[in-house]
Amino acid sequence: MKLFRYGLKGQEKPGILLDGEHFDISGFGEDYTNDFLANNGLNRLRSYVDENRNELVPVPENVRIGCPLANPAKIICTGLNYYDHAVETGFSTESEPILFLKAISALNGPFDGITIPKTSTQPDWETELAIVIGKNCTNIDPTEYNNIIAGYVLINDVSDRAFMKHRGGTWDKGKGANTFAPVGPYFVTADEIPDVNNLHIWLKLNGQLMQDSNTSQFIYKPDFLVSYTSEFFGLNAGDIIATGSPAGTGIGQNPQRFLKPGDIIEYGIEHLGVAKQLITAYK
Amino acid sequence: MKLFRYGLKGQEKPGILLDGEHFDISGFGEDYTNDFLANNGLNRLRSYVDENRNELVPVPENVRIGCPLANPAKIICTGLNYYDHAVETGFSTESEPILFLKAISALNGPFDGITIPKTSTQPDWETELAIVIGKNCTNIDPTEYNNIIAGYVLINDVSDRAFMKHRGGTWDKGKGANTFAPVGPYFVTADEIPDVNNLHIWLKLNGQLMQDSNTSQFIYKPDFLVSYTSEFFGLNAGDIIATGSPAGTGIGQNPQRFLKPGDIIEYGIEHLGVAKQLITAYK
Repeated sequence: MKLFRYGLKGQEKPGILLDGEHFDISGFGEDYTNDFLANNGLNRLRSYVDENRNELVPVPENVRIGCPLANPAKIICTGLNYYDHAVETGFSTESEPILFLKAISALNGPFDGITIPKTSTQPDWETELAIVIGKNCTNIDPTEYNNIIAGYVLINDVSDRAFMKHRGGTWDKGKGANTFAPVGPYFVTADEIPDVNNLHIWLKLNGQLMQDSNTSQFIYKPDFLVSYTSEFFGLNAGDIIATGSPAGTGIGQNPQRFLKPGDIIEYGIEHLGVAKQLITAYK
Repeated sequence: MKLFRYGLKGQEKPGILLDGEHFDISGFGEDYTNDFLANNGLNRLRSYVDENRNELVPVPENVRIGCPLANPAKIICTGLNYYDHAVETGFSTESEPILFLKAISALNGPFDGITIPKTSTQPDWETELAIVIGKNCTNIDPTEYNNIIAGYVLINDVSDRAFMKHRGGTWDKGKGANTFAPVGPYFVTADEIPDVNNLHIWLKLNGQLMQDSNTSQFIYKPDFLVSYTSEFFGLNAGDIIATGSPAGTGIGQNPQRFLKPGDIIEYGIEHLGVAKQLITAYK
């Protein structure tokens, strides 16, 4: 299933994409919350859709699309998980995955736009595939990933490189500003993805292709990342684990090219949809 | 006001401490959520208590005390914010505050106990004063802190030093395990604290005093920290900003002394109450 949420921010309603058309699914009576995922909601939703397919009402055109998950509790991110991106950033790599947390208050819809923070000088894009956790768990064996991964979403792990590199402390400072986590458009259930380790991933800046890679370039694959993160964190249904971005970010350009007000980025991953954001200055 | 929440985890009810006695305040009709704080809830609660003081029912004895905030969205932590603790950890200090995020799934009640994660070898304690944010905001001027800080809570920023130091990436890995964020017992409104920069802070391990300091030893004070964090993160009502721990943590002992199953830690801060945790092994 390809699920989405639409409407004003904070008042989104659930929807489902069927044969390329967007339908409202409010009649199901549940939003795509953590409890929905933890309590077998995807299977119940599937039955509901099967039984009510002909009564579903299309969503109005031009409606706002929100984050496709209702209340994710945390966003865990993986750093430097594509070989080529690790080289271009100039950051030191580690002998195991780099993990950090992205502030949940950074969450945004996939077309809402990005606001450059007041003192940000090096805002940058990072197109990423993110895992959506479907169960509350810790210390997962990598072979169990099938039971743990509910699906996938597209995320832009927006980052200020100067905040990360030159303001002391951990990367978290450069990752958590408001609007720095556009998610969606779709929450795509795992069964819809033929091979998560072979998906085209790309980003255009003002129409120019900047990122153009494939998830086959992962250093650490999603099954391993779920296991690895669950060693350090309790994972909960609805949690998002972003898997890192390929080469072609602004920090990797020569000269470096960071986001400016008026820029438009458009990006996507095969099967997960396309997102687009206008960049604006802090007011 | 000194507010608390009691009952089974996930089913807590709100309460208030009046003249040393714990009263149920469910009749007020609101829990201590982010929306409660964002919508002037503290003033409404104050009026309710004034009008209904004689009808309030005491809370049963020996009831479980939970986290005094209903659904904080994020926990921002400050690293190395007491001079003596910075030295004892052996971590490099920075020219500005070190910030990192603590996973929200680590939240726990103040007497629930701490479970050592499966592969943890250096679990450690950190008694801290934490700020509770009362408004949604960004880019706060330090002089505005009075309008932003709703109150304070006691937090134990439980940390695995080996996860932080030897597992690659940011400190977040060593800070976010389940049970690693006991908060409470009380959410104390700012007006109850005569001087937040002059409070006794202490911790005992199995009865032996290990941390014994004063918030006068802060490198960065709460008013500055609110302003500083709001440069990087959008702050929301209910967010928690922990202000760092004084000397006397396990990593600072000679030889180093980390938590073991069966240990009991008890700790407190003047005006904020006392918390106590039994340490258990991962099962």
